This record gives sequence, C-alpha cells and structure tokens, in this order.
Amino acid sequence: MINMDQVRLASVSKPDLAKDKQEYLEYDQAVHRVELKIRKLLQTAPPLIRRQTSHLARASGKGIRARSLLACAMGSDGLVGPGAVKAAAAVELLHLATLIHDDIIDEADTRRGIQTLHLKFGHKIAVLCGDYLFCLAFDLAASIPPREVDRNKVGGVLPSYFTEICLGEIREFSNTGNLDLTEGEYFRIIAEKTAALFQASFHAGFLLSDEPPEVKDIYLTVGKEMGIIFQLADDCLDFISSQRKAKKPVLIDCRRGVVTLPLIHALRVDPTLRGRIETGLSEQELKAAVLAAGGIDYTRSQIEERRGKAEQLLSVLRSAEKRKRLTGLLHRAAAV
Amino acid sequence: MINMDQVRLASVSKPDLAKDKQEYLEYDQAVHRVELKIRKLLQTAPPLIRRQTSHLARASGKGIRARSLLACAMGSDGLVGPGAVKAAAAVELLHLATLIHDDIIDEADTRRGIQTLHLKFGHKIAVLCGDYLFCLAFDLAASIPPREVDRNKVGGVLPSYFTEICLGEIREFSNTGNLDLTEGEYFRIIAEKTAALFQASFHAGFLLSDEPPEVKDIYLTVGKEMGIIFQLADDCLDFISSQRKAKKPVLIDCRRGVVTLPLIHALRVDPTLRGRIETGLSEQELKAAVLAAGGIDYTRSQIEERRGKAEQLLSVLRSAEKRKRLTGLLHRAAAV
Repeated sequence: MINMDQVRLASVSKPDLAKDKQEYLEYDQAVHRVELKIRKLLQTAPPLIRRQTSHLARASGKGIRARSLLACAMGSDGLVGPGAVKAAAAVELLHLATLIHDDIIDEADTRRGIQTLHLKFGHKIAVLCGDYLFCLAFDLAASIPPREVDRNKVGGVLPSYFTEICLGEIREFSNTGNLDLTEGEYFRIIAEKTAALFQASFHAGFLLSDEPPEVKDIYLTVGKEMGIIFQLADDCLDFISSQRKAKKPVLIDCRRGVVTLPLIHALRVDPTLRGRIETGLSEQELKAAVLAAGGIDYTRSQIEERRGKAEQLLSVLRSAEKRKRLTGLLHRAAAV
Repeated sequence: MINMDQVRLASVSKPDLAKDKQEYLEYDQAVHRVELKIRKLLQTAPPLIRRQTSHLARASGKGIRARSLLACAMGSDGLVGPGAVKAAAAVELLHLATLIHDDIIDEADTRRGIQTLHLKFGHKIAVLCGDYLFCLAFDLAASIPPREVDRNKVGGVLPSYFTEICLGEIREFSNTGNLDLTEGEYFRIIAEKTAALFQASFHAGFLLSDEPPEVKDIYLTVGKEMGIIFQLADDCLDFISSQRKAKKPVLIDCRRGVVTLPLIHALRVDPTLRGRIETGLSEQELKAAVLAAGGIDYTRSQIEERRGKAEQLLSVLRSAEKRKRLTGLLHRAAAV
C-alpha cells in the first residue's frame, strides 16, 4: 500500500530539481527533445560511420519505449528532467542496435519503411554499426546522474535487461520452425526479447522520477505487461496488416518459421493444420487457416485481459497526468 | 609532479578496505580468481547458450588486459580487491565479445587454437552470442561499487572506450586493401581498435586502486602505449610467427587485406613493392619482401622506443611491486 505521507515527503526539497528548472520539460516537449537528440546523435556520428547512421536517421520508430520512460519519469509537478531525456534516447538507441542485428539474423529487406542496413552496406558493417550503437547507448546511459543519492544509476540497471533481450533472441532463433512450441515457451520468449526493454524503460523512468520506493513493483509489472501486449499486437499485425501500414514485410514470421500465439492457438484448435503446414501451405492459406481457427481473436482477448489488469495497477499512481499518459500508451501498444 | 604527502594521505583510512580484508588477494591469486570467474560464467551460462559459451571456455587468452587491470588496481599493501577481480573479468569478456564479432567479419576459421564460433554454430548465433557477452560484461562492470565515493564507477567509464573500439574496427574494415594507408592512419586505427581496451583496463584499475588523482594520466598514457605496443608486436608476429605458435592462422592480415606497419614501411622503402603486390604476389614472396625492406626491424624499433618511454613513466609510481608487474607486462606485450 502507498503511504501518502511518504509520497508527499518524497516530493519536496529536491535540490537537483531546483537547480536547473529550465531544463525540466512538459511531456510533449520532452518527447520532441528525445527525437531531436537521437537524430542529432545519428547525423553527427563520426564521419566514418555517418553514412550508415544517417541512413538510420531517415526513418524513426514509434518511440513507444521512449514515451513510456518519459511518462514514468514525470515528476509530481508534471515535468520531465534532462536525465530522462538522455535515458529515453539511450533506450531507443539500444532498440535500434538490436533491430540492426535482428535484421541480419532474419535476413530482412526493409525496416521502418527503408532498406535494412546490412542490405545497403553489407553484413560486416551492419554488425559493427549495431555494436557501435550498443556502446553509444550504454555510454549515454552511464552519463546520467542518479536522481537521488540512494537510488541505482540508470546506467547500472540497463545491462541486465539487455542480457535478457539477447537470450530471448537466441531462444526465438533456436525455436525456428518448431510447431511444438507451447504457449508457455512463447510467453517466455516474448518476455525476454520484447518485454525486457519495456520493463527497462519503466525501471529507468521510475529511478528518475520522484515516486516512493513502494511503487517500484507497479512500474516493473506494468512495463513488462506493456511489452507483452505490444508483442502480442505485433504478432497479430503480422497476419492481418497490409505491408504499407506495417512499414515492414508482413507474414514475415511465418516465412522465417517464427511461431507466434495466433498460430499456436490455431494449431491447438484445428487438428488438421499441422499436417497441412508440413505438406506445404501458401502464405494466404496459412493466414486464412489461422483466422478461421480464431487465432487472432484469441490473441486479442489475451491483449485485452492483460491491458485491463495493467490499467488497474496504474490506478494507484498519484499523478493523474501520468496515469493518463501511461493508459494512453497501453492503448497504443494494444492497437491491432 | 607527484606530491608525496598527498600520496601518503590518500593511502590511509579506507573504511571499505578494512571491511572485507579476507576478499583482498595477492596478485597471482587474483589472476587465478579472474580465470576461474570467466570459466564459471561461460560454463554456467543459461542452458540455451551454454554449448556456445562452453566451447569458448575451452580456450583461454593470455589475459594480458586482466593482468594489467589487476596490477593497476593493486593497493599500497600489494593486495587486489574483489571489485578489480570483477572488472578484470568484465574486460576479458568484452574482449571475447569483440573477438567473436571480429571473426565473423574476418571470416576467420580458428582463434586461440579452436574453431571459431561462427564456423561451428553459424553466423546468426555468433552475432547473438557476441551481443550476450557484451551485455554480460557491462552488467558485471555495473555491479562494481566505486572504490571511493568521489570516483567514477568502473561501469560508467567502460562504454566510451567501447565506442572507440567499434570505430577502430570499422576504420580498419573500411581500409581493407588500402595500400595508401599512412603510418598516422595506421596508428589511429590501432589506438582505437586495440589500445582503447588496454587504456580502459588501466583506467578501471586506477579507479579501484588507492592511488592519488595526480597519477591518473600516467595510468591512461601507459595503458594506451601498452595497447599500441601489443598491436605492433601482433602485427610483426603475423609476418614471422608459425601458425602453431600464434594459435591462429598467420599472414592472415595480408590475406584479409589489412595493411599494418611492417607493410607500410616496406612500401615506403621499396618502390617496386606496390606494383608487385598489385600484379599478384604469393604470401611467401610478400613476407620475404617485407622482411627484406626492414618492415619488421622498423616496427620492432617503434616497439622498443615506446616501451622505454612507458617504463620511464611507470617509475614515478610508489609501489615497487606494481612497477615490477607493469614493467613485466610491458615486456610481455612487446614480445616478438
């Protein structure tokens, strides 16, 4: 339970908040600042690598991880500090680094509507460019001073989430084409490969906020749930979205042999599907079979159930604006 | 200049030194502890990745970066603390991660006498395994408490050195086959790709030692020089060593088109060499030409000059044992 006296106590007399008041921004300004910061970092990278990073700067993601971090870091005055802007940029750069390596592994052609880095510049440069962005992100995170002396530094909590992401990627890759993948194993994969970075964003946001320690677990839980919801929605979109809307090839999971929840459910309710896949099924036939077996509906119901629970958890947070922002982001993550 | 009063003052009343006296080790014990720690981390990795990491655990490197860090971290009592053991393991893991990605880029077959990871398990797993070890190392480094409150955390200084290493790798790769590479450009590449990690080891060791701030620059300079010396010696060995001794294929730089100092010098003194290389030269002919043009002798003289200067810098350090260890490591790095 939240002790409101502690909460009030925690939100007064923050010397570092008073110091640079002008650097504290409204949420929307902070979102914009993060976008600018990322673009600047990519466009002013050392000349050696600028062609590659400038290519990446041409297309931006939805920034849902950065937005989550900024919303979590919002103080009781509704403002977001400079540390959160740095941390949000670091999280998006880390995400970009994993996408580059992912695309190499998936042999993907397009990402965010533009040609993938390894296709444009070759695999070798793409591996190194991913490594460079990894380090740049850790470097940025390490430069953030702790919000309070007794709290962990943001740079100190990110690496362990990153180990999880790598494990999730490896686990997904080792299960390529595995039609026996269980729902439990699927959730373990997405908890690692996707939800870990959302949880990291919420954790970093919490560390940079003026929230009392008692609500830390709420942040961690909602962060993880938002990541799972986001991946569930993404896995639905792979079946039902048009390529133009998704800004990346669709039905790519099937082509790559990545087994996701809509298919797991369809395999469970339609006993003929497994045999049909093994003897050869066109992409359109597979899509039709998954839809007919209710794979999308089932996944959507999982999304809604999880979203409801996450929203309930958010209700204990004291700031109305923070609740509103995070609820909005949950809706956005869940959009199918 | 070193103020010896400050030095003496800095070496007394360290509450954290007294706390866990039993965890403080002699240098040789600490070296052994680091080796055990790395082997344990690799052999007890999550089952998913254990086959790969266990393969890596079968062959260890010379550990010169770890040894340098431990020697630098040695206190005035000659002992090395637990933070330094962690940091040294982190540096070796980071090195291992870069080797895995390097070997992908160089299409190398063997490393440290065993088959490379990408050849045994495929490129995709190798990219992810490198990423995993990167994160594991940053995670380990982030867990080290600062030696003194006012000093930077080790986990905070490592990432920026890593950005340098990535840039060095990219710079080297972009200069593949470039016979116009100047000596200055060559030194820039090796300062980044190799010397940055040695400097990082010396920096981390300094942060974990009880040395006064005034000697920080000595550590940074000697660290960088040791890295350059190590790379110069490695580049000589590529021409003159037998495969068995080097535990990796030799003359690989030439085959890959990596232009190093012995060749740069040979191209400078032998005006016919460039034309002969361009029309096609066997590896043995190239080796003979570089030796005949004095490329190895010239590189060796650079090594000796730099080693002499670095040793001179070390002479201001107060601990005789530390001076002895670091001088020994300089000799080892310079061994051709």
